Amino acid sequence: MIERISILGTGLLGASVGLALRAAGFRGSIVGWNRGAEGARIALASGAIDSIAADPLQAARESQVVVLAMPIYATLDYMEKLAGVLDSDHLVTDVGSTKGQICLAAGRLFNRPDRAAFLPGHPMAGKERGGAELADAELFRGAVWLIADDPECRRSAHSAALVKGWREWVAAMGSKVIDMDPVRHDELVAWVSHLPQFVATALSALLQDEVGDAPELKDVGGRALREMTRLGASPYSMWRDIAYTNTEAIQASLHALEQRLADLRENLRTPGLREEFELANRFRRPEPPAR
Amino acid sequence: MIERISILGTGLLGASVGLALRAAGFRGSIVGWNRGAEGARIALASGAIDSIAADPLQAARESQVVVLAMPIYATLDYMEKLAGVLDSDHLVTDVGSTKGQICLAAGRLFNRPDRAAFLPGHPMAGKERGGAELADAELFRGAVWLIADDPECRRSAHSAALVKGWREWVAAMGSKVIDMDPVRHDELVAWVSHLPQFVATALSALLQDEVGDAPELKDVGGRALREMTRLGASPYSMWRDIAYTNTEAIQASLHALEQRLADLRENLRTPGLREEFELANRFRRPEPPAR
Repeated sequence: MIERISILGTGLLGASVGLALRAAGFRGSIVGWNRGAEGARIALASGAIDSIAADPLQAARESQVVVLAMPIYATLDYMEKLAGVLDSDHLVTDVGSTKGQICLAAGRLFNRPDRAAFLPGHPMAGKERGGAELADAELFRGAVWLIADDPECRRSAHSAALVKGWREWVAAMGSKVIDMDPVRHDELVAWVSHLPQFVATALSALLQDEVGDAPELKDVGGRALREMTRLGASPYSMWRDIAYTNTEAIQASLHALEQRLADLRENLRTPGLREEFELANRFRRPEPPAR
Repeated sequence: MIERISILGTGLLGASVGLALRAAGFRGSIVGWNRGAEGARIALASGAIDSIAADPLQAARESQVVVLAMPIYATLDYMEKLAGVLDSDHLVTDVGSTKGQICLAAGRLFNRPDRAAFLPGHPMAGKERGGAELADAELFRGAVWLIADDPECRRSAHSAALVKGWREWVAAMGSKVIDMDPVRHDELVAWVSHLPQFVATALSALLQDEVGDAPELKDVGGRALREMTRLGASPYSMWRDIAYTNTEAIQASLHALEQRLADLRENLRTPGLREEFELANRFRRPEPPAR
């Protein structure tokens, strides 16, 4: 049913979607476009896309499904541009890490009977560096793909079928779909994704100040230190839009961790330390069967 | 030259020392003792030790080198017991994670011409769980083995030769020895080892409170979350003595991170966030050649 897909933004995620669709058996056309020409050429050479579009809006118009795989503000920008040129025969979806602002824009610009449909998506997959050269057909296998759709939207029958078809391709790429309200989405990812990143960044920056001038001292920490600071390599360019569009939820999670660390600091010699370790152990323990 | 070694405490580290010595070509005797009989039996069955001692003090007396591989307070306890029964033909060494209190005890009880020598050691290797069953001949390969020796101590010629011999076996096990003052040692490991552990514990405990009742939500975080919380599985029993014997340095590092997180939280939408990411990136970047 879905035979023509365009991927706008052929970085790590966009090119991986192309490769994963092919690996899952998608036989239709995949047109790609990227702001930087080199990323599009790499995606073409790897087989992630069949051809490079000269004009992203034209490519979108000629597709049934448009995948926006860009930073969040670029995604919002293209949502504005696409809303005016697409109609109810089109589905637009994205891979952005925060969903609040994107869902607001989707409600304003899409998801009416005469408009294109918009399905807000967020595959929980990535690497600490981006780029088409790191794309991987297996990137989404075993990962959760969050969908923050609005069940109230009045879509055309045609775009409802495209939504159903796209969900099936997401599953075929190996992901487990979890549907979630956009506000809950942004709160949840602040805890389980954004907080770990910002902690790794702050820890790495602190250690750079403390021991960074003595390279041999980094070796002292061994595997545990390498693991706790690996995400410190993540670039600002990937995280700026996330910090801007999920500020309050990230602030709340950071503040909670600051308090937790202060409590732990004051309880290094009290039974409170044992309780904190036991709670942490529970987080890492295999869970009992769902209630 | 070293032909008789006893290992008191055949948990993960003690049994790994036995296996690593054998793998490095040590052909002398290795006698083991463990507080729990099961750990000694596992070490014997794996070949980490040749025989199980009935009496740890007797085993120490009959060895040239005694390896204390116990929690820190147990190490301090055995240092007291051993000082009275050993003489200048013996070297005692340990693997404890903090060195301040152990070095104070060593100065009081050992390292005089008529006494046994004590070499405070700290291999930066381990796993998030202990036990002889996880012992590994390769555990120390590529790891740093910190030595917090006092260059001022007046040892017998014999025990000085044992110190030299033991340092050679540490290198033969694959470790890189770094000598360090005990105060500097405890400060450094607070930054690169204890801080990452306590951050992982606090983060895991916080997430257990926030999302622990919804197992499927843990999957959302993916690899990054798993990595940042793996150390959350570390048991309190391994970390209690560290928290007690390096309290001030750990408190200082925790406090510094709390402030760093608060700064980051207040700068999510300012150029300060870019600077923090750049500093973190530098920590993870390959270093230029040493100056």
